[in-house]
Amino acid sequence: MADTIFGKILRNEIPCHRVYEDADVVAFLDVNPLARGHTLVIPREPAVTLDELSDASAAAIGRALPRIARAVMAATGTRAYNVLQNNGSAAHQVVMHVHFHIIPKPDADHGLGIEWPAGTLEHGAELAKAIADKLA
Amino acid sequence: MADTIFGKILRNEIPCHRVYEDADVVAFLDVNPLARGHTLVIPREPAVTLDELSDASAAAIGRALPRIARAVMAATGTRAYNVLQNNGSAAHQVVMHVHFHIIPKPDADHGLGIEWPAGTLEHGAELAKAIADKLA
Repeated sequence: MADTIFGKILRNEIPCHRVYEDADVVAFLDVNPLARGHTLVIPREPAVTLDELSDASAAAIGRALPRIARAVMAATGTRAYNVLQNNGSAAHQVVMHVHFHIIPKPDADHGLGIEWPAGTLEHGAELAKAIADKLA
Repeated sequence: MADTIFGKILRNEIPCHRVYEDADVVAFLDVNPLARGHTLVIPREPAVTLDELSDASAAAIGRALPRIARAVMAATGTRAYNVLQNNGSAAHQVVMHVHFHIIPKPDADHGLGIEWPAGTLEHGAELAKAIADKLA
């Protein structure tokens, strides 16, 4: 994968406001936050999208997310929040290194705005089987 | 926590289109999808929000997410997707049992719509320290 700004952060080549790190995961403040406390959680493993990530890195990020979320909420005094992870530029990914956003939702004017144009599930049994077959 | 529709799904009291399950995690199709293949990934452990989840369940979900994402994308032929996890009704949480959405983004008219009213980080060093102190 190409180098990214997060690669430079991982190698300490550019500064960040770090809030957490362990053997597999680093978390730091987003410099363009959607709300106060907006934090990015990234694997040290280089991977562009979540589907490319190893089981070990994915488990380590999963384990870290609740801990970091608790600290972000405690420090900012917020209760509601969104966790968002975008894959591909069509899905709003900007930096091409896997990252989870933890975004406090303090009020209607701050945090993540979501549009939810839900439809109705059709041919669910066939689709579920097609996905399950790929997991088998 | 109060019982939820996902609790009933976990106990097989109501049907779902299941795509994956292991000792800690179950995944099934959302009945009101934002796009074809929209899948929900939930822990068997009862927890309302991500911050309440045990390390073991959180790691298990983290590990499962890339595997399930690969299968959803392979089965639907989609490349871009969003992973979203909402905590609190102010942050669009509807079912009060932790769940991650895997939402394919096949085109501009389907999938998750995101509003991104980004600001600029202020007092980053103090805020990062306040969060890091909560993690210490």
